[in-house]
Amino acid sequence: MTKARNRRIVLAKRPAGMPTDEHLVMEEVVRPTPGDGQMLLKTLYLSLDPYMRGRMSAARSYAASVELGEPMVGGTVSEVVESNVDGFAPGEIVLSSNGWQEYALSDGTAVRKLDPAVAPVTTALGVLGMPGFTAYVGLLEHGRPKPGDTVAVSAASGAVGQVVGQIAKLKGARAVGIAGSDDKCRYVVDELGFDAAVNYKSDDFTKQLAEACPNGIDVYFENVAGPVLEAVLPLFNDFARMPVCGTIAYYNLTELPAGPDKMPALMRAILTRRLTVRGFIQFDHLDRQADFLHDMSEWIRDGRIKYREDIVQGLENTVTAFQGLLQGRNQGKLIIKVA
Amino acid sequence: MTKARNRRIVLAKRPAGMPTDEHLVMEEVVRPTPGDGQMLLKTLYLSLDPYMRGRMSAARSYAASVELGEPMVGGTVSEVVESNVDGFAPGEIVLSSNGWQEYALSDGTAVRKLDPAVAPVTTALGVLGMPGFTAYVGLLEHGRPKPGDTVAVSAASGAVGQVVGQIAKLKGARAVGIAGSDDKCRYVVDELGFDAAVNYKSDDFTKQLAEACPNGIDVYFENVAGPVLEAVLPLFNDFARMPVCGTIAYYNLTELPAGPDKMPALMRAILTRRLTVRGFIQFDHLDRQADFLHDMSEWIRDGRIKYREDIVQGLENTVTAFQGLLQGRNQGKLIIKVA
Repeated sequence: MTKARNRRIVLAKRPAGMPTDEHLVMEEVVRPTPGDGQMLLKTLYLSLDPYMRGRMSAARSYAASVELGEPMVGGTVSEVVESNVDGFAPGEIVLSSNGWQEYALSDGTAVRKLDPAVAPVTTALGVLGMPGFTAYVGLLEHGRPKPGDTVAVSAASGAVGQVVGQIAKLKGARAVGIAGSDDKCRYVVDELGFDAAVNYKSDDFTKQLAEACPNGIDVYFENVAGPVLEAVLPLFNDFARMPVCGTIAYYNLTELPAGPDKMPALMRAILTRRLTVRGFIQFDHLDRQADFLHDMSEWIRDGRIKYREDIVQGLENTVTAFQGLLQGRNQGKLIIKVA
Repeated sequence: MTKARNRRIVLAKRPAGMPTDEHLVMEEVVRPTPGDGQMLLKTLYLSLDPYMRGRMSAARSYAASVELGEPMVGGTVSEVVESNVDGFAPGEIVLSSNGWQEYALSDGTAVRKLDPAVAPVTTALGVLGMPGFTAYVGLLEHGRPKPGDTVAVSAASGAVGQVVGQIAKLKGARAVGIAGSDDKCRYVVDELGFDAAVNYKSDDFTKQLAEACPNGIDVYFENVAGPVLEAVLPLFNDFARMPVCGTIAYYNLTELPAGPDKMPALMRAILTRRLTVRGFIQFDHLDRQADFLHDMSEWIRDGRIKYREDIVQGLENTVTAFQGLLQGRNQGKLIIKVA
């Protein structure tokens, strides 16, 4: 009998710039067999998120790099196939971190069961998962919007941005989205209820953004940095807050960009407007996760928070889909349907 | 009888770059006469501070620009010459804001009496005044040093920096100064008790700074920005705080500097190290002023906080002294002895 196989995508080489299938290589290995206290999980859905670009790099960051030759990391929704772990039975669906592969072993640590009756299981990777939680803690802990505030968010139609704007609305603020296409702008306004949205690829983006924020910006939820941040700087009100969740515009930089040097403009805004700029990572705030699950489940059930998922079929399309994520080609939370 | 005169320095032209006597012009006008509810104040000492560069510019900042043709603003220690204000009598010494001139009228608003028996009156412009208060609120409210933390401060021998490092020591932190000469470095270590100091003009400044901060940096009190900030970025520990008090390195910029663009390096540090960067101005924290006066008076009396003043004789030397301040030529708190 032929041994059962496991397809996986490993980090073969660290990318400088955009990662390609030269760096992320599909391989087929023997499917592992669970030992005592282990279970075999089959990946149903794999989450693709911008933070993964950082894991491909050797540079010091907030989490360890993926080692060369190892499968890329990533959150997954998986099915228990075989189980020697108490409390987990074949057929159950779990949230796990199997990475970019079809099968993985687990001892049950950091694995959470999902009830498909409560919400579609893919939401555990998006609006009810890490991206939704990122939006929740970043906006509420660090953005602290007050009723009447203007909250601007970049990558507004992405997995995090779409939730940020909707929570801002729930808290009585004006939500202004910044996104990379007219389609995405229409989506966040027409479907999600943002007050306005601006396409940063427009020729007169800076002017449009100013018009969309007639009372300035009190909270800017930063996912991208780069030219979008430069356009935001002059609009900050005194004591505005800027939670920094990501800097997608820089993720594929191989060196600092040619000038001029924009750091003086940023530092000047921080000083004169007395900004609070706060980098954050969701896993530093796990004490808020129970509140998040409670609130977000209720908001989704009541139709107060909507979401969109962009589900791509097949592990073999993962690299192309990930490139599209870094280029803003996805529409909503990007997920690979693996099995 | 010749009318009594008042010499003053007015903003004749807005500087692009370093201000000179082309922009800041001495003129002699008739000395004003106090009316009902007014008093005539004679300037004894004028404080020179980096923030004044911002007031010469028309750019949007945290306070209004000085109008062309008007005297430059500034804190002063003055003597009451004539008084029609209840509670103020000739011969009394007060803290006021007369600006760059020999005489000014006041109705007593925002004027505070000084007791020369408590401390030398010049301290009301320095360690017991706005710069000392800036250090106090910036470090304690926004830097929040814990025992064992490493606190780095730029412009370490200046009016604010020298106090920041000493308060850091009082709070049990390691104080590391960054200054522009070996003399200044020796001063903050030998006289003020900083644990280490590094001359940012050294060829191997980055290496020296890393060696002076073997456990990284938990609080960086920013007075200058520019290349000093670039050297600090790789040393930040997780959850470090950066109160931004000034950006002297940029004050005479006429345009953004040539590249590379350093904004990505700053934003990346903010994100990956989860920094809190907070611009602040002392006048937003006046609720802490009573605490400050209480604590600082006690620390000075007990010899736990020391200070140095750089007193320049003569209003006619104000412009040159101010240029020196922006170039780091002063040694400690810069004050003009006017009368």
